[in-house]
Amino acid sequence: MNLAKQLLSGNRLALTRLLTQVENDTSEGRAALTELFPHTGAAHLIGVTGAPGTGKSSLVNQLALHFRKQEERQVAIVAVDPSSPFTGGAVLGDRVRMRDLAGDPGVFIRSMASRGSLGGLAQTTAGLVQVFDAAGFEIILIETVGAGQAEVEIARLAQTTLVIEAPGLGDDIQAIKAGILEIADILVVNKADRPGVENTLKALRSALELAHPVQHVFQHHGVLETVEAPEVPTYNSWIPPIQKTVATECTGISELADEIARHAEHLRESGDWAARERSRLGSELDAMLQDMLVTRFRDQVSQSRYEAVLDQVFQRELAPWEAVKMLLNGRSQ
Amino acid sequence: MNLAKQLLSGNRLALTRLLTQVENDTSEGRAALTELFPHTGAAHLIGVTGAPGTGKSSLVNQLALHFRKQEERQVAIVAVDPSSPFTGGAVLGDRVRMRDLAGDPGVFIRSMASRGSLGGLAQTTAGLVQVFDAAGFEIILIETVGAGQAEVEIARLAQTTLVIEAPGLGDDIQAIKAGILEIADILVVNKADRPGVENTLKALRSALELAHPVQHVFQHHGVLETVEAPEVPTYNSWIPPIQKTVATECTGISELADEIARHAEHLRESGDWAARERSRLGSELDAMLQDMLVTRFRDQVSQSRYEAVLDQVFQRELAPWEAVKMLLNGRSQ
Repeated sequence: MNLAKQLLSGNRLALTRLLTQVENDTSEGRAALTELFPHTGAAHLIGVTGAPGTGKSSLVNQLALHFRKQEERQVAIVAVDPSSPFTGGAVLGDRVRMRDLAGDPGVFIRSMASRGSLGGLAQTTAGLVQVFDAAGFEIILIETVGAGQAEVEIARLAQTTLVIEAPGLGDDIQAIKAGILEIADILVVNKADRPGVENTLKALRSALELAHPVQHVFQHHGVLETVEAPEVPTYNSWIPPIQKTVATECTGISELADEIARHAEHLRESGDWAARERSRLGSELDAMLQDMLVTRFRDQVSQSRYEAVLDQVFQRELAPWEAVKMLLNGRSQ
Repeated sequence: MNLAKQLLSGNRLALTRLLTQVENDTSEGRAALTELFPHTGAAHLIGVTGAPGTGKSSLVNQLALHFRKQEERQVAIVAVDPSSPFTGGAVLGDRVRMRDLAGDPGVFIRSMASRGSLGGLAQTTAGLVQVFDAAGFEIILIETVGAGQAEVEIARLAQTTLVIEAPGLGDDIQAIKAGILEIADILVVNKADRPGVENTLKALRSALELAHPVQHVFQHHGVLETVEAPEVPTYNSWIPPIQKTVATECTGISELADEIARHAEHLRESGDWAARERSRLGSELDAMLQDMLVTRFRDQVSQSRYEAVLDQVFQRELAPWEAVKMLLNGRSQ
């Protein structure tokens, strides 16, 4: 019985092995993903992102605990750290993980340090998520560090994206994160017992006004007053709620889980669940296509030929675009 | 006379036009880059990166002023903001730029907000740099916001990379940036008149120990004491210096310029200048190849065919890897 079949029969050792195969992008891993794919699509993928210092990991732990103990659901956590390309793992390594969850077979945690390109990281994460999904994990928390484009790409894997903030991280930091608010389905202000929480809430509300102007008009007035742009689908829109939590004291976690459930319901009712799923699979397909095109090219052009062309570029005898054309047209050389 | 020839004859309007063509990746822009390429390779590319709040822009301004006034060199600044994929431009837009440099034809500034993929951003930046290089700008400052993988990729464009820190940005922030220290050729502690500067220096020295352990042994003892690993090329190695500055008061700028010159000299003497140049051109070639492979694929597979396959994936009738194979093998369909 191959690893995929073992996984589907509930073998946890097969799960660990398969995750490693997928992370290393082996042919066995690819074959297993193909076999498992018809068994995916049931899980609720929840992306969690935010700057270091927001207490993101504690929050993910508490959410996992809640889903386990209150809702008896199987929970997987994929923790990704794309911000440290060279010393990957250090940030994840030093944290205290899951003391309350240790030994519970209904929870599975996989940490992944950065490797290769950003695209590769998103692709690998997508693979890991599919393995967990096929293995019957109903909730998959995808946790990323930071607030750059990497996180945006990984957030696109999720059906529901939480963006975590905390008081006292500085105005500069708030400003730079304006972009990521636009991908947030739920905003969480963790460490909400700290001074400055009102300022953080105020900053988030301002940022939300910018990111979701029309929805806010809708929210504030109950009906859409501005009728100049009737093509904007304002009804049925989701306005990201702001949830305060103190993860270390388990405050606000249950309310946050309710908001997550409400968002899932909204996605299903509005048809956005299917739309996001299709868009997600499209991105995945594109990344794989690109990967395969590059692999095929490498198989067709010898390393010595490539080096010779690069040398000509280095000597300024050949411009990069000319080199590309030469390599692509003379593949058999 | 085409734009490339006009540029080479010193026409500044052609420079502006060409930068726009390259930024929009037009066929005219690509043709011009090909024509200009033999005229590139003379500039010293200096990457400047660091978190928001470090006073990076002021520092870049002061450096540009120094190179203009003290060394009478032509200076270009390419300011890139990859951290805000949706509201790109906001962070760059609100800063006070170059009051002392306005009207000086020996300085040219180009701001670029994020667009498209990270790879695309690095590629576009490389193109802009080539235009400035061919136009005779001797110093090209490439400024990026943040400390993620995007900045690392852009830093690879430069021969000399400065990483800017400042006191009081929080320990979490310092920790997350450990990775980027490994790409730093020169560390700058700006705002060095602020409280906490000793802590910042201490944190940087610790991080440097981790990033460059052997070189530090070499530095501290004058000879290499540990002989267990003779294959490590420790002599001739560069130990990133730490330079304190107060950009707003122009303190430490001249010393920083000296360190930059010392690094360029080191690169030329050690042969690293050529090695970095070749590696840089190799990355550029790879990005272009990937780009071209995807373009060719798109030309060969119709949108309706692609959508039909994606629908099969969405319906779970076809796994992503099977879909990729089908699309690549049935190109003419």
